[in-house]
Amino acid sequence: MTTQAEAASPTLERGALLPLASQLAQWIGARIQAGALAGGARLPSVRDAARRHGLAPSTVVAAYDQLQAQGLVEARAQRGFFVRGGDAVATPRIAAPARRDPPLDAAALVRSMFEHGRPQSERAPSPGIGTLPADWLDLPLLHGALRRAMAEDTRDPQSLRYADPAGDARLRAALSTRLATLGIGADASQVVTTVGATAALDLVSNLLLAPGDSVLVDEPGWPVEFARLAQMGVKCVPVPRAADGPDRAAMRQALETLQGADKPRAYITVSVLHNPTGGSITLAAAHEVLKLAEAHDLTIVEDDTYAWLASPQAPRLAALDQLQRTVYISGFAKILAPGWRVGFLAASPALAERAIRRKLLTSLAAPGLTERALAITLEQGLLRRHAERVIQRLAAARARTTRLAQDAGFAFAAPPQGLFGWVECGVDTDRLAALLHDEGWLLAPGSLFHARPQPSTLMRVNFAAAQEARVWRALRDARSRLAPPARPRPPTDAGAAPMRIRA
Amino acid sequence: MTTQAEAASPTLERGALLPLASQLAQWIGARIQAGALAGGARLPSVRDAARRHGLAPSTVVAAYDQLQAQGLVEARAQRGFFVRGGDAVATPRIAAPARRDPPLDAAALVRSMFEHGRPQSERAPSPGIGTLPADWLDLPLLHGALRRAMAEDTRDPQSLRYADPAGDARLRAALSTRLATLGIGADASQVVTTVGATAALDLVSNLLLAPGDSVLVDEPGWPVEFARLAQMGVKCVPVPRAADGPDRAAMRQALETLQGADKPRAYITVSVLHNPTGGSITLAAAHEVLKLAEAHDLTIVEDDTYAWLASPQAPRLAALDQLQRTVYISGFAKILAPGWRVGFLAASPALAERAIRRKLLTSLAAPGLTERALAITLEQGLLRRHAERVIQRLAAARARTTRLAQDAGFAFAAPPQGLFGWVECGVDTDRLAALLHDEGWLLAPGSLFHARPQPSTLMRVNFAAAQEARVWRALRDARSRLAPPARPRPPTDAGAAPMRIRA
Repeated sequence: MTTQAEAASPTLERGALLPLASQLAQWIGARIQAGALAGGARLPSVRDAARRHGLAPSTVVAAYDQLQAQGLVEARAQRGFFVRGGDAVATPRIAAPARRDPPLDAAALVRSMFEHGRPQSERAPSPGIGTLPADWLDLPLLHGALRRAMAEDTRDPQSLRYADPAGDARLRAALSTRLATLGIGADASQVVTTVGATAALDLVSNLLLAPGDSVLVDEPGWPVEFARLAQMGVKCVPVPRAADGPDRAAMRQALETLQGADKPRAYITVSVLHNPTGGSITLAAAHEVLKLAEAHDLTIVEDDTYAWLASPQAPRLAALDQLQRTVYISGFAKILAPGWRVGFLAASPALAERAIRRKLLTSLAAPGLTERALAITLEQGLLRRHAERVIQRLAAARARTTRLAQDAGFAFAAPPQGLFGWVECGVDTDRLAALLHDEGWLLAPGSLFHARPQPSTLMRVNFAAAQEARVWRALRDARSRLAPPARPRPPTDAGAAPMRIRA
Repeated sequence: MTTQAEAASPTLERGALLPLASQLAQWIGARIQAGALAGGARLPSVRDAARRHGLAPSTVVAAYDQLQAQGLVEARAQRGFFVRGGDAVATPRIAAPARRDPPLDAAALVRSMFEHGRPQSERAPSPGIGTLPADWLDLPLLHGALRRAMAEDTRDPQSLRYADPAGDARLRAALSTRLATLGIGADASQVVTTVGATAALDLVSNLLLAPGDSVLVDEPGWPVEFARLAQMGVKCVPVPRAADGPDRAAMRQALETLQGADKPRAYITVSVLHNPTGGSITLAAAHEVLKLAEAHDLTIVEDDTYAWLASPQAPRLAALDQLQRTVYISGFAKILAPGWRVGFLAASPALAERAIRRKLLTSLAAPGLTERALAITLEQGLLRRHAERVIQRLAAARARTTRLAQDAGFAFAAPPQGLFGWVECGVDTDRLAALLHDEGWLLAPGSLFHARPQPSTLMRVNFAAAQEARVWRALRDARSRLAPPARPRPPTDAGAAPMRIRA
């Protein structure tokens, strides 16, 4: 049987510069190149595709012809169009990444998470997605702040000059105040803005690490981070993530055993509301980790991406250490404005200075207007109040999702907290994801969260995006198709213990 | 004699979160760390500084105390405050960069170009600056487009999701149309947006080059580019820039002589309206360069930063080659919106795909709203008409500046074109820059435009920023202080020949 492809839909714009057929061809072509459509997959019939996308059949034929001319698909007599390369039963790469090429597959995964055009309600469920649903965010708040920033721009046109290489001064001052509420003392001069938190991680990694260096990372952890480090030529040394923080015994062993170039120089971690397990580091664990860091001259990069979804009282490593050997990174994508790409780092004065120089050489400056708008949301307490509302709503969603999951027979491998749940499925979640991917679903199978992908029976769910009963019905049904209740498959991942997650 | 520092002024905001004294201390501290204030330089007296910045003397004392507490300055009895380190007669590093550390000095140079707060009219002249004066740009045009983008955002909230990793689809389609007017055939799928053209250069360099690789660069050329490549661990092989393009004989020799890791893998060039000489490559030279590139398997990175200031008919390497072995890079900083940081690259489908993956791993996506606003300026022809007005205004400024320069006894080392003139001063321009830097001026001495800084009697001037008679009077006076007419100093740079510039 061939894999039927194309369950999702592209954004086709009538009256756009590019004809509809070319738009469709481009969209399918991009999915092929991203690996979301594997070699050998059959494209939908012309009639099906025309009906699904609301296009004339001739438009679909023209699109398929373009793809054929580009060498991306081939026509087979009486059977239709097939993606070239691979054999006929290839599984979509997104769900079962090729093990030898993690960076590309992580990129493909994330690209598939950037689904555009259709409103949330019309899309297939995305319980594995990494962001809050768009309708949880506050567009009027953002637009109001941007209008105020434009009014300031008229009086003093920052649009017409490069921004301060360190970032908007007002935003940096507001972030310094915000950091103080987290117990982190950072003067505005120690804060450097970036185009999103990922860019801050990239900037800091390049300051701290050279190709061939080793770095400690949480496992499970964020696959884009692993892929980014692999692309830099940096070796990831995984530290199992337990419910109270990283496994200190494993960390100590790695630091004492590995020598020379293999000795880790940094530890990159999401200490609060960890992705994907949802756990936060305890005070005791933070203290131990910092003592280890000091003993082994380790710099800690604390990625606090989910900061606004957590309590200000949750201990941050940077609050204990006061940015002596920690660098603190955060942003606004998970609470307010994913599309604006504003992130920042806070570091010691010397490291902040190096970060500014590197930022300057690689991009001159960041966009100033949206930074100013975010400064306004901070200065006026708008972001804080919005975050309080989101935290309440998320708590309700978490309670509901947890109940639905448990009713459907799924267990949590870590106590439900924050945005993500780490769910034990009892079957290989790559297979589960592949099954539902064909219906347009986006799951986040556990294999992706390992530095070296490996089979897993775990799965990340987004509490806000998985609170519909139909999600858990479909997951339960898919699971029984893979492992009929009469002959349960043994878990392939050791992480099934509810309170402790191992790699 | 000690160097008197602090002619420029910081942006001090009353009522800001940070006290005025701390703001002043931060500003001076940043200048010290950036190298703009050298070790040994004397800070202005408390009375002078208070008068200059409109502050109470006690505020200045508090600021100096903070700097002293930070170890950045020291008090000397009866003499005042001095920047720590260095000897008392050190020249500001910005004008005479330390030869051994080019990346940091280029960064310091560029940071000094980001002067904030005061309107253009109140600032000391900046004939060496790299951008159009802010009042040549069109803020209402930008704001109108951004308001339209916000209206679209309300209907379809791109602020609330990550943008397409390749960039805003409308902007990419509009850029594809724009590239067609330059004779470059690039489908929208071959266009990838970046946070400014510098980020595109950084992205492409990282795709094409690894540490230890060699790359051909124009000399003279853009110092931030040299510094960026040096920071990557890439070796720059300078190719002298002649009036008609790069010196092909030198290029051929480098390609035939250098072997192994030293053999250049790419050539990064501003082919049209070259910075700093203003020259554009001819058709014949472009053809020769591309044949050399083919013979030696060289990728060409064509940085068309000044594209909108040039004729669409000016030959682009990418128009001859159709993106086979060229990558085309441009942006909007020099014509419309320096503060928005929107740039892009156009490349072969395979390289564009690699660029998207790398962009995704290092920053997930770029900000979408300003990209959409720029798409609107392109779609509606607003940017084209604005550019036509700027080109006319620049032609008038160029004529006026050229006449003033020649009347003051300065010659042009290359025919005046575009934004920059390359001026023969007959004295060491590092010394000229240092002299006027003390009065708050920003010059761009020739030494900075070499991959390995070396003394130069040349200087870059911005035609739009140097059309006041007082600029050339001051330059003439400064020159005679350095080289009295009775005993003219011989030029220290071989680039004095008017039609041919050599390294």
